[in-house]
Amino acid sequence: MRVLGVDPGLTRCGVGVVDGTAGRPLRMVAVGVVRTPADAEVPQRLVGIERGIEEWLDEHRPEAVAVERVFSQHNVRTVMGTAQASAVAMLCAARRGLPVALHTPSEVKAAVSGSGRADKAQVAAMVTRLLRLDAPPRPADAADALALAICHIWRAPALNRLQQARRLHSAKGPVR
Amino acid sequence: MRVLGVDPGLTRCGVGVVDGTAGRPLRMVAVGVVRTPADAEVPQRLVGIERGIEEWLDEHRPEAVAVERVFSQHNVRTVMGTAQASAVAMLCAARRGLPVALHTPSEVKAAVSGSGRADKAQVAAMVTRLLRLDAPPRPADAADALALAICHIWRAPALNRLQQARRLHSAKGPVR
Repeated sequence: MRVLGVDPGLTRCGVGVVDGTAGRPLRMVAVGVVRTPADAEVPQRLVGIERGIEEWLDEHRPEAVAVERVFSQHNVRTVMGTAQASAVAMLCAARRGLPVALHTPSEVKAAVSGSGRADKAQVAAMVTRLLRLDAPPRPADAADALALAICHIWRAPALNRLQQARRLHSAKGPVR
Repeated sequence: MRVLGVDPGLTRCGVGVVDGTAGRPLRMVAVGVVRTPADAEVPQRLVGIERGIEEWLDEHRPEAVAVERVFSQHNVRTVMGTAQASAVAMLCAARRGLPVALHTPSEVKAAVSGSGRADKAQVAAMVTRLLRLDAPPRPADAADALALAICHIWRAPALNRLQQARRLHSAKGPVR
């Protein structure tokens, strides 16, 4: 299974592609950052992000896309930009018929480090170890994108079973 | 000047096209709502909104797009959906090279009714009067989209002068 992880942001959108299956060693395919100039207008920045994500999808042909789920309890300005960038990532994936999964930051941290409260350095260290890299990926957004992809590869079997159960349930109608 | 106003939302995205110039009577070209099913996943809903906005742009060829500026002080869940839908609207417009302007709800209310604290009914009544319609447009999101377009037509000359002044200023460098 090949997954593109996207850590959304207007200034730096982390992107990372990982190959793997739950229970088998993982392989990093590529990692990078889609950047847009901070002094550009938001609509133009969204066009830049769309172009960047499309290039990553074209080049690496992932089977699924994992995007960080955005919450709005943080800084107001940042959150709006993050929500907008994540909308573009979801749109690009869904337009191609690719499944899109959203994982919260604590789900990602828990998946790669065992703790939902792990800090950035801990997540980067685990990503480096799990993908057998020589050094932690830079910048942090790139490491987070890889962590998202890993989280998705490991959570996908459970998520799929859940979805199948739901589909079966709604096909049969509620149990009386 | 032909403007497409977009009142962004995942469930109902209001869209309205108005022709006009500041100081002259306005004309409504079309009004409607782009809807996506509440039980669909967000990525699929964003694809639906993109398709809808593209149809409106293709059919009515506006020269500018006015989108409501989203704030996140309101309900968290609603705001994320609104930010995502507005990102798609901005993307569709900017991809075609159309200028995109964001207006806050109070700027729109002040433009059409004279008060930034006007209620929904007051805005709808003024939109009906200004566009010489027989009845207020329904649903409310459609009336809001028309109000956005009107606000843009009336604010555009001032906004353009401001942008020109800024460009001139930055070309000449700061005054010492």
